[in-house]
Amino acid sequence: MDQPRYRPTDAMTSPRFVGIRTFMRLPYLPQPRDVDVVVVGIPFDTGATFRVGGRFGPAAIREHSLLLRPYHPALDVDLFEHLSAVDAGDIDVVPGFIEDSYQRIERGLAELLDSSGAVPVMLGGDHSIALPDLRVLQRRHGPIALVHFDAHLDTWDQYWGHKYTHGTPFRRAVEEGLLDTAHSIQVGIRGPLYGPQDMQGSRDLGFEIITTPEVHERGAEWAAQQIVARVGDRPAYISWDIDCVDPAFAPGTGTPEVGGFSSWQAQQLLRGLAGVNLIGFEVIEVMPQYDGPGGITSLLAANLCWEFLALLALRRKQAAGLAASAQADDQRG
Amino acid sequence: MDQPRYRPTDAMTSPRFVGIRTFMRLPYLPQPRDVDVVVVGIPFDTGATFRVGGRFGPAAIREHSLLLRPYHPALDVDLFEHLSAVDAGDIDVVPGFIEDSYQRIERGLAELLDSSGAVPVMLGGDHSIALPDLRVLQRRHGPIALVHFDAHLDTWDQYWGHKYTHGTPFRRAVEEGLLDTAHSIQVGIRGPLYGPQDMQGSRDLGFEIITTPEVHERGAEWAAQQIVARVGDRPAYISWDIDCVDPAFAPGTGTPEVGGFSSWQAQQLLRGLAGVNLIGFEVIEVMPQYDGPGGITSLLAANLCWEFLALLALRRKQAAGLAASAQADDQRG
Amino acid sequence: MDQPRYRPTDAMTSPRFVGIRTFMRLPYLPQPRDVDVVVVGIPFDTGATFRVGGRFGPAAIREHSLLLRPYHPALDVDLFEHLSAVDAGDIDVVPGFIEDSYQRIERGLAELLDSSGAVPVMLGGDHSIALPDLRVLQRRHGPIALVHFDAHLDTWDQYWGHKYTHGTPFRRAVEEGLLDTAHSIQVGIRGPLYGPQDMQGSRDLGFEIITTPEVHERGAEWAAQQIVARVGDRPAYISWDIDCVDPAFAPGTGTPEVGGFSSWQAQQLLRGLAGVNLIGFEVIEVMPQYDGPGGITSLLAANLCWEFLALLALRRKQAAGLAASAQADDQRG
Amino acid sequence: MDQPRYRPTDAMTSPRFVGIRTFMRLPYLPQPRDVDVVVVGIPFDTGATFRVGGRFGPAAIREHSLLLRPYHPALDVDLFEHLSAVDAGDIDVVPGFIEDSYQRIERGLAELLDSSGAVPVMLGGDHSIALPDLRVLQRRHGPIALVHFDAHLDTWDQYWGHKYTHGTPFRRAVEEGLLDTAHSIQVGIRGPLYGPQDMQGSRDLGFEIITTPEVHERGAEWAAQQIVARVGDRPAYISWDIDCVDPAFAPGTGTPEVGGFSSWQAQQLLRGLAGVNLIGFEVIEVMPQYDGPGGITSLLAANLCWEFLALLALRRKQAAGLAASAQADDQRG
Amino acid sequence: MDQPRYRPTDAMTSPRFVGIRTFMRLPYLPQPRDVDVVVVGIPFDTGATFRVGGRFGPAAIREHSLLLRPYHPALDVDLFEHLSAVDAGDIDVVPGFIEDSYQRIERGLAELLDSSGAVPVMLGGDHSIALPDLRVLQRRHGPIALVHFDAHLDTWDQYWGHKYTHGTPFRRAVEEGLLDTAHSIQVGIRGPLYGPQDMQGSRDLGFEIITTPEVHERGAEWAAQQIVARVGDRPAYISWDIDCVDPAFAPGTGTPEVGGFSSWQAQQLLRGLAGVNLIGFEVIEVMPQYDGPGGITSLLAANLCWEFLALLALRRKQAAGLAASAQADDQRG
Amino acid sequence: MDQPRYRPTDAMTSPRFVGIRTFMRLPYLPQPRDVDVVVVGIPFDTGATFRVGGRFGPAAIREHSLLLRPYHPALDVDLFEHLSAVDAGDIDVVPGFIEDSYQRIERGLAELLDSSGAVPVMLGGDHSIALPDLRVLQRRHGPIALVHFDAHLDTWDQYWGHKYTHGTPFRRAVEEGLLDTAHSIQVGIRGPLYGPQDMQGSRDLGFEIITTPEVHERGAEWAAQQIVARVGDRPAYISWDIDCVDPAFAPGTGTPEVGGFSSWQAQQLLRGLAGVNLIGFEVIEVMPQYDGPGGITSLLAANLCWEFLALLALRRKQAAGLAASAQADDQRG
Repeated sequence: MDQPRYRPTDAMTSPRFVGIRTFMRLPYLPQPRDVDVVVVGIPFDTGATFRVGGRFGPAAIREHSLLLRPYHPALDVDLFEHLSAVDAGDIDVVPGFIEDSYQRIERGLAELLDSSGAVPVMLGGDHSIALPDLRVLQRRHGPIALVHFDAHLDTWDQYWGHKYTHGTPFRRAVEEGLLDTAHSIQVGIRGPLYGPQDMQGSRDLGFEIITTPEVHERGAEWAAQQIVARVGDRPAYISWDIDCVDPAFAPGTGTPEVGGFSSWQAQQLLRGLAGVNLIGFEVIEVMPQYDGPGGITSLLAANLCWEFLALLALRRKQAAGLAASAQADDQRG
Repeated sequence: MDQPRYRPTDAMTSPRFVGIRTFMRLPYLPQPRDVDVVVVGIPFDTGATFRVGGRFGPAAIREHSLLLRPYHPALDVDLFEHLSAVDAGDIDVVPGFIEDSYQRIERGLAELLDSSGAVPVMLGGDHSIALPDLRVLQRRHGPIALVHFDAHLDTWDQYWGHKYTHGTPFRRAVEEGLLDTAHSIQVGIRGPLYGPQDMQGSRDLGFEIITTPEVHERGAEWAAQQIVARVGDRPAYISWDIDCVDPAFAPGTGTPEVGGFSSWQAQQLLRGLAGVNLIGFEVIEVMPQYDGPGGITSLLAANLCWEFLALLALRRKQAAGLAASAQADDQRG
Repeated sequence: MDQPRYRPTDAMTSPRFVGIRTFMRLPYLPQPRDVDVVVVGIPFDTGATFRVGGRFGPAAIREHSLLLRPYHPALDVDLFEHLSAVDAGDIDVVPGFIEDSYQRIERGLAELLDSSGAVPVMLGGDHSIALPDLRVLQRRHGPIALVHFDAHLDTWDQYWGHKYTHGTPFRRAVEEGLLDTAHSIQVGIRGPLYGPQDMQGSRDLGFEIITTPEVHERGAEWAAQQIVARVGDRPAYISWDIDCVDPAFAPGTGTPEVGGFSSWQAQQLLRGLAGVNLIGFEVIEVMPQYDGPGGITSLLAANLCWEFLALLALRRKQAAGLAASAQADDQRG
Repeated sequence: MDQPRYRPTDAMTSPRFVGIRTFMRLPYLPQPRDVDVVVVGIPFDTGATFRVGGRFGPAAIREHSLLLRPYHPALDVDLFEHLSAVDAGDIDVVPGFIEDSYQRIERGLAELLDSSGAVPVMLGGDHSIALPDLRVLQRRHGPIALVHFDAHLDTWDQYWGHKYTHGTPFRRAVEEGLLDTAHSIQVGIRGPLYGPQDMQGSRDLGFEIITTPEVHERGAEWAAQQIVARVGDRPAYISWDIDCVDPAFAPGTGTPEVGGFSSWQAQQLLRGLAGVNLIGFEVIEVMPQYDGPGGITSLLAANLCWEFLALLALRRKQAAGLAASAQADDQRG
Repeated sequence: MDQPRYRPTDAMTSPRFVGIRTFMRLPYLPQPRDVDVVVVGIPFDTGATFRVGGRFGPAAIREHSLLLRPYHPALDVDLFEHLSAVDAGDIDVVPGFIEDSYQRIERGLAELLDSSGAVPVMLGGDHSIALPDLRVLQRRHGPIALVHFDAHLDTWDQYWGHKYTHGTPFRRAVEEGLLDTAHSIQVGIRGPLYGPQDMQGSRDLGFEIITTPEVHERGAEWAAQQIVARVGDRPAYISWDIDCVDPAFAPGTGTPEVGGFSSWQAQQLLRGLAGVNLIGFEVIEVMPQYDGPGGITSLLAANLCWEFLALLALRRKQAAGLAASAQADDQRG
Repeated sequence: MDQPRYRPTDAMTSPRFVGIRTFMRLPYLPQPRDVDVVVVGIPFDTGATFRVGGRFGPAAIREHSLLLRPYHPALDVDLFEHLSAVDAGDIDVVPGFIEDSYQRIERGLAELLDSSGAVPVMLGGDHSIALPDLRVLQRRHGPIALVHFDAHLDTWDQYWGHKYTHGTPFRRAVEEGLLDTAHSIQVGIRGPLYGPQDMQGSRDLGFEIITTPEVHERGAEWAAQQIVARVGDRPAYISWDIDCVDPAFAPGTGTPEVGGFSSWQAQQLLRGLAGVNLIGFEVIEVMPQYDGPGGITSLLAANLCWEFLALLALRRKQAAGLAASAQADDQRG
């Protein structure tokens, strides 16, 4: 009950380039207890059908998270006033073997969440990890409202006769009953497809779709409002494929599509989700091998995790404010 | 009349990273007959006055075209339902010798178009190749309505006493009577100039000019409408210098200018040309040496070719629809 | 009065990749006299608290300034009709020793400005050089209206017990009375902070702040108007940290923040300052080590200097026009 | 019997940067008949236990094979006077699924060799492809004398409970009876191991081992002699892991080990094998993502294939010389 | 006495790309007790007089140490049978302030060594950290026999009036009485100098010098013998500047000099020191910003630390063997 | 007679990263008089038949020459005690037009040498510039003994019907009578050729050839002795194609060949030429676009120029020593 509150190393004591790399320089606790948020890497990339290398994504995102500071000025919230957070390291996977890895991811993630009671932030890896992630979360929360940011639908049925790849996790998730598709939405879809049946397939599964051209034309704030309306008060999970952002802003990924979001639009989309009941976040398909020397893709991915943490903190801050206000009312009452 | 229809290798049979690199994994046919579209590289870069290296542009564009799929969701058209297309490889050029290369390009391209009857998509190479390209096309179509996307005017008279460079092709083209300048337009002009006479020179040749700031302020859709109005029903050729796009989106080029289009604006500009009578397309000044490891410049160039193919396919689809509708009317009538 | 007018090498005589690298291929004069503008590098980067390497910034900016031509079409002004300009090379600094370097920068810059009478364009180097730059300029002009473009406030008090770093120059400048803060403004602030006290600290010093989200929402033209209103007719100095631009457009910097300006917004911000009484310009925090092979960060930095030169030239052109007009009136009168 | 002889495009007709990329610019024939050599890519990399990305190896090796000319001055042989050779493209693999891929590789390679009758040159891909390669070759030639150049033994038993990876192919090959280990040898072993049992394990399987330090100390010519003596007149297959070369000469690979061969030592090792009865060659573990912009790893890999072709050609030349000589003797006799 | 023995994560349990990056995947213990070896980063680079950026050296060396396995075949020793080792993270430094940083390094390192009793392996940082490193070690061991591998002498007196830089630490160390120069040696000196007084200055301080040309001509084994003879039985510290290796093998450094050692020569030099009484090791001047995507400089630096650990382990193994042998003799006796 | 002596900026006054980039930080004098050595760039690369981009070679070599110090310890000579040297900038060339450029190079170089009386050091550019360089030098010295270091012969007759390319300069030079082939030699030849006639062609022109394998086998010192013997006392010109060095040491070039010299062998080859009557030096085919971020190719090229300067200085030092000795003898006599 008196567990320590975990927060990043103070940059005023220790310069930000100093030390072992954890996300935001949070404490490294492989078996945390009683924390609010746990960041964990899942360096699995065998699901990739084109470029490959996301196994080095978690390390790269950590390396470029060093600059993140605790206060979010646009949302006016200090993340670590409201959240105790740690980096639990990575979950052991088995490169080359997806079903074996799925078992290990599920076991590792379940243990981590059971013992810590935390909201997870997952650093991928390719998008195939969404399936074990959702399996674990569904067991805790029931069917999940998925908020899926991506250039691609990832609801294809199979590739070359195989059911588990980075292009198929959400069809599997629907088949397994993990998702509340009536409250789920795919945002950022664009680029060449195999045919009109691709989008129809997602819609047949129950997903709403917002394409990137719609966001460009109607605005990211409009899109965020659509997401909020779709999700309602359900437990919502954000699965963020970095390729929903334009290759200019995120070149380090596996199946880039031109015409995507700017980093500002990405920020708007997340900031617009304030108030949603968020139960987890994953950022996937970061491949540092295809990033430039500035590491801007990993930097953006780290910032998106930070935006998610800010949403969590804001919700707690607002709840605390309401509670305090209610208590004050009671006392006055 | 029963020639085979050519389309890309099926990604569901063969993963997209497999095989000899052709554009979109189309069949490689150096001497195609009876096809609708032929993609051909023209790896000539001796016309470059600053950075050089576009001779490796065609290979890089092919490498980054692998991800392109056949269906265009925004235009609702499957490219290869309406187009039989091949990659004819590259035309032999002579590095270092522009007039000799011009002869070889003209001969090679004329043979290719005569034998195939196809609409050409040319992969440059520097912008000096526009002149032989236009010479061949003018012989087939008469004076051409040029739609020229570029940061630069490329209507200078000469460089250091020489008439043929990548900065002069369109003045030469006008002098040779290749263009219908009353229906031609230059879009995307921006950046430092030698003097006010530069733009005036283009206007004196008969070109309309839309600058990049105008597009930023009035919108890419407005600009596309201007282009459509300018071109009318003339046979139109699109010459796309990749540097009309901002260096953030297309760093791999020879004379980059800041303040350019985003990739989304580029898409809007092309998609807005639906219905125009397009007779060819070239994308030029891609230099992979200056691109990052993600290859985003080549990726964008490949996507622009794909947008062009979609415009062609859409026009055929619409024509077929009209024909079918007319036939139905006849049968009813 | 009969001093030579200095202008760049003519690209029509000598191709732009030829020759010793000076800014825009201006004459190299380490001890210029009677010139309008002097470009000078200050390759000092010991003030950096995260990534480091700005000591190679001046050379990189010069390398990528070669493409700049003399005429600005959007402002309709030929820079060198109105300005005689030179590159004075770099000021000797002492890497590793900030106070010693400050003395050398002050002495070197003061001598340069005293002997030349020129408006300076400084190529950094990290942001710690702003302090000696402002010391020298304040001695010439009195308290200065600072127009500070940056993702960061740079008004922190100290780092690890040290007063002089790249995060503290503007607090020091206020303490030393160098700034007219009532007419100073910080533009482009965004990204994670240590706490709400950071922005408040800047406001307490007297600065107005425009955040990046405000610019995204209300437009760069609006922001430029705010700046012009804030500065009024005071002598104004522009300190441009390249990280105010988004990492997609400027990856080569030390503390990048996502969600920043595009290069077009950067151009709009500067072009909107026409008419301001500008006394100097610095562009800082360019680190070519983190740029891609296309050098787009250095290219943008060079272009921003060019925009500044155009503003200077335009003001002189307009003054000359007014004078000519007045003279004409007199003659008519 | 009158089949065409295939050879590279003539660089004096067509510059070497022109055209669709095939190995050495050989004709692209996916289903060749009656050729002496077939080059084929096997872009499979799911077996990789550390870095991954060899699926782009074949394309990179082809890109950097363009410079290769037909005549080998050190061995005094024109490759294509004695060999008719083609590039058959790549074999379809299934990324993420090693056993399925093994089946496809075996089927594809067997068909290719059966129909063509050719000696194969395989472009990997990671080292796990050695197993299906050897399966096919053993069916044609019986147990094979393996000449294995590598920093690593690749005779481990399993990784994380899985038998098929890039670290285990040669143990599997021995278990399957594919190798004549009494005439097989591993050359270039070096670097950290798990324990002394690693090398002993290889020796227990029957392999001879020459470490890199031995080659440095006794010379590459000595090592080549040892190989020749070990192999004798058995059908020999060369499996060349590019990481047997030092990372300075081959940075673009997955598990680099310092202290390796120079490119000159690599050449000596291969040239010293003249006269051996060579039945195939594979170069594997080339990962262009980790190579520099000069592509020196792929260039070296392409050159090693060329050395192998020269050995084949030389053996034919010498056989032809002997036959001619014998015929002359007969005629004289 | 019953403290745990620390060793790397088992790669057979957890793939080597998994997890928080520590050196060789050793346990991360910022305050270790009773260990044999502690690896610690000192990310200080303000002493650099040319290129800068070694502050990111420790993270890069850790990233590229993942491949290292526990057994050294050439020396026949398993490192972690004889050594219990941890990674203690980095020591806090103050970028920009060398004397303040020296105090922090001395304090941090002394505490670490006092509490752990370990032999340190330091990951730099630039060469200026050698001075505080030696101060701490001299207090523990008395004057130290320095074995200095470097292209440069680093015994200059000052730069621009300043005594503490990366070019002066060993003159300072002699002045402070930290070194036993009669048993100290500088190996690998080469490249342009200011004048003949440079080498003479080192000799006047008491150092023996072996130049790189001497090593090339007489062999690395000869050089190692000279070092062993020079050092004798004194407590010896190895300071390894990565630039003693040729830029082909170690491009990622600050003042590269051509004509240097190969990685094999570097290995020979270290392996030849078996038996020396080694009290510590530092590898410095690794700058990942100047390395290629393969990270070969960091990889080599990590391997050199591993060679040092093997030397330590071998000495303990031999001591244990002698003790066991003596005990056996006693029992027999 | 009282002209100033020119030497590099003192690194003890001004750090080596400070200032406008000239070779070794020598004074920039476009029209020098009475100097011993002039460094001049010839940024022409239109002669390239494969990769292209040497026009940026001179700038890159200057950038990486900053580290060079004045004293050569292996030859024991201070370059600037014996040489007054300047950097004259670049000669204007016309990209794309080789014959026009040849005229400009000849005119520019002749003027420079006539006015300065200096020995030239030329920074290329591709190898086609050797022809105008030799034309100018032959007019001053008569037929020249060429010492040509290269992987390639560059004595082909033509490419695609054109006589002037980077593969043909030395055949042209022989035809024009510029060379004393009986005293000329080609060193470093290796790699694939078109046929045995290639080498025979060079020999028929009169050249001696030393291949790279011969140097590897017999030693660089032996090779240097062969060169000295071949050249005798004739005026000798060194043309150094950077690709004679292995791609590991010089990746940034246009037609790399594996199996080349190390940087140490390159140094040995030049140092072994002490005493030869050297009249000029060119280093060509440096392409920074293909170099890594460490710039090791340009660094090596700069060092080779420095070695040449040391040879010049040594000869003057020895001549001065002989003169002094003779004078002493006279005085004694």
